[in-house]
Amino acid sequence: MAQPAAGKLPKYRALPLLLVFAFGHLYLGAQAGPAPAKTQVAAEDPFPEIRRVLTEQQAAWNRGDIPAFLEGYWHSPELTFAGSDGIVRGYGGLTERYRKTYPDKARMGELEFSSLEIRTLGSDSALVLGHWHLKRAIGDAGGVFSLVFHRFPVGWRIIHDHTSAQKQTP
Amino acid sequence: MAQPAAGKLPKYRALPLLLVFAFGHLYLGAQAGPAPAKTQVAAEDPFPEIRRVLTEQQAAWNRGDIPAFLEGYWHSPELTFAGSDGIVRGYGGLTERYRKTYPDKARMGELEFSSLEIRTLGSDSALVLGHWHLKRAIGDAGGVFSLVFHRFPVGWRIIHDHTSAQKQTP
Repeated sequence: MAQPAAGKLPKYRALPLLLVFAFGHLYLGAQAGPAPAKTQVAAEDPFPEIRRVLTEQQAAWNRGDIPAFLEGYWHSPELTFAGSDGIVRGYGGLTERYRKTYPDKARMGELEFSSLEIRTLGSDSALVLGHWHLKRAIGDAGGVFSLVFHRFPVGWRIIHDHTSAQKQTP
Repeated sequence: MAQPAAGKLPKYRALPLLLVFAFGHLYLGAQAGPAPAKTQVAAEDPFPEIRRVLTEQQAAWNRGDIPAFLEGYWHSPELTFAGSDGIVRGYGGLTERYRKTYPDKARMGELEFSSLEIRTLGSDSALVLGHWHLKRAIGDAGGVFSLVFHRFPVGWRIIHDHTSAQKQTP
């Protein structure tokens, strides 16, 4: 997503959704019919790993550390970020975007990720849906995000982020 | 995305990007280091198949046929659609959304998908980025979309759509 995650991820709130999506994936697998050579069993459960990345992003954001926040993303010119301003490309491009959009702590505010839904897409990819919220004195912001994660030797990283802002009710 | 695709997909315009992303995927694979048991070779090249789904969606939209347009999506309550209004769930929910947002041909306008970028995510999943544009007498609309496709026995279908609208320059 566009914004980071922290130690205050609503674990218990997200659990039912997590189960729904764990089941959803099984259902999706069933829909796919007689599985060819695609019994993609992950070497390890990606869910805790992915949640850890988002938790660390949230914590980094909330201490005002954008470089640490960006560690959750793939260090590559192929990284993509989509939103109402179109497509931002590359780790450098995304760094620039965050520096411009969130120049100080007042703009950054306090970030919370919630209602995380994780779906595996094969053994090395996953889709994460969630809500982001920025609590700020200058006015809150928030919306939904879709993250595509890929598993690298260093761990799971976001390779594509599509984030939307939602109208805030005052 | 939110909107459909047609016979007028800019094939040649999208080709360079397609090549970039074909290469990008190889690069991503290289980044992933010594590949474990994840040499996910697709049974068939998903790119033409996925492009066909989008082309058919565009054609359906441009003849005002929303039910045919929706055929590109996964017929499931697990289908998700994210945007500035939050998350819409299920095939039924998405059908409802399109009926409300595009009640007539004037609102639907003429749809064009462009700058498609397709990345495989294992043998049965793919990510598609692209731009959508609605040419309308009441005012154009457009933006970017991220689609997660999954391969089913019936073919490739969208299992998640995140669409953003962009400010239109008059």
